[in-house]
Amino acid sequence: MRFVTFEEGGAARVGVVRGEAVVPVSDLVPDVPASMKALIATGVPAGLEDALGRAPADAGRPLAGLTLRMPIADPGKIVCIGLNYHDHAEETGQAVPTYPPVFMRCTTSLVGPGEPMIVPKCSEQLDYEAELTVVIGRACRHVSPADALEYVFGYTLMNEGSVRDYQRKSTQWTGAKNFDRTGPVGPWITTADAVPPGAAGLRIRTLLNGAVMQEADTSGMIFDVAAIVSTLSEIMTLEPGDLIATGTPAGVGMGRRPPVWLKPGDEVTVEVEGVGALTNPVAAEA
Amino acid sequence: MRFVTFEEGGAARVGVVRGEAVVPVSDLVPDVPASMKALIATGVPAGLEDALGRAPADAGRPLAGLTLRMPIADPGKIVCIGLNYHDHAEETGQAVPTYPPVFMRCTTSLVGPGEPMIVPKCSEQLDYEAELTVVIGRACRHVSPADALEYVFGYTLMNEGSVRDYQRKSTQWTGAKNFDRTGPVGPWITTADAVPPGAAGLRIRTLLNGAVMQEADTSGMIFDVAAIVSTLSEIMTLEPGDLIATGTPAGVGMGRRPPVWLKPGDEVTVEVEGVGALTNPVAAEA
Repeated sequence: MRFVTFEEGGAARVGVVRGEAVVPVSDLVPDVPASMKALIATGVPAGLEDALGRAPADAGRPLAGLTLRMPIADPGKIVCIGLNYHDHAEETGQAVPTYPPVFMRCTTSLVGPGEPMIVPKCSEQLDYEAELTVVIGRACRHVSPADALEYVFGYTLMNEGSVRDYQRKSTQWTGAKNFDRTGPVGPWITTADAVPPGAAGLRIRTLLNGAVMQEADTSGMIFDVAAIVSTLSEIMTLEPGDLIATGTPAGVGMGRRPPVWLKPGDEVTVEVEGVGALTNPVAAEA
Repeated sequence: MRFVTFEEGGAARVGVVRGEAVVPVSDLVPDVPASMKALIATGVPAGLEDALGRAPADAGRPLAGLTLRMPIADPGKIVCIGLNYHDHAEETGQAVPTYPPVFMRCTTSLVGPGEPMIVPKCSEQLDYEAELTVVIGRACRHVSPADALEYVFGYTLMNEGSVRDYQRKSTQWTGAKNFDRTGPVGPWITTADAVPPGAAGLRIRTLLNGAVMQEADTSGMIFDVAAIVSTLSEIMTLEPGDLIATGTPAGVGMGRRPPVWLKPGDEVTVEVEGVGALTNPVAAEA
């Protein structure tokens, strides 16, 4: 299933995507959790899939007319893995890591589907990064790679926007990765059962104004989803709704000659086959 | 004033420290915000200081008998600045940064006053770091160093516990800085008016089982509080209740020969003159 957070009457609602429509979860089952995070924490409501199957063909609202929000408004943590594809490590001139480089993003750095990614006043070097993003379903600590996927609720996308000149100012990437409204997340959460285990073997791409800029297979990850969840869980308790962006393949703007930076007026889409496609315009900081 | 979050009847309450007592804010003024974060966002309630002055000498509860919690349960972000004292940069053998290295911690890595700091199973190299910690009072972006202190509500302490062997596994420090329950925060928030501008010129120390391990002056920071707030605000919107740990001086366990690591049974105190002292026991992971 695909769960989406959409806006209606100024409030956020949780819906299920069916074809080109979104059916509010509250139209299908009683006792609906108040948010996506609550739904993830309590699990997919019993009978939801059956109720969706029984719903009339015209149930719900047209997806095209809805304002989607970030699937989870307030993730407890947003963990990112850097340099996680061999070809991207190469294009940046950095060594292939033997342990996953970890950094975090804060919610002020994120936006929802369709919202502008913002080129900050202080830089012209905003870059895209298509990333398969894990949504944790159940709290876990010290899970083995063999068990790790049991704790994954599903997957979404992050365009892990990075301000490259600021990334070179310091050994630590966190600042460059946390400019306001540079990291789109969405468009929805595809449950883990809808894709291969660990979302492996899926095509991941970035399209900039329709041109393919990144194209790879998620199996090109240095540390796969199970390894990432297991490694992080040695450090920290992962909690329902936590997001883990799993790194980007080759083809980022920084790696091109000449480099390609996102400019106001651009439109950028990141997608993972079977998970979704996330499109955002690019705008200048006001 | 000093604001504390304490536990009573299983719930968190906000109080004001007066001498050796804590007076619940709700005993002093009506319409009390529901949490410290809400109090910070709406500002110190009008009339609170007067009401505290008029309260009977025996008002409130003895501080010594209270269970204190992290002053802010759910900071929007927890930003940390690394290598921010000249002598600490030297002891780690790293270059003095020309731009502040930024990383983040998540709430699962934090604990409140008196709660055990946890030595993880996978490492024996848990290290202390005394850090003056800024509490943001008002939302800001693009503030100049000259104006930055207007957005500071007050100060607290963080013992920015770091797992050193994990810190060496990667160029990015974030993993090593986010082990569960390794970062005490507290004991309270001292409002900015109670200390010199930018909390400069204050003695900062760590005591391990009573022995002084770190002792420095907050004026030894490479980037002072105003510079840090201004620099971060170029990147991100800082919001009420956000925490910024400002780095640690020389004397960490890693810098000693032989190194000193925190062991179960230890007691560690970090303190900043005029701000507070934060004491925690050390325990092994269960």
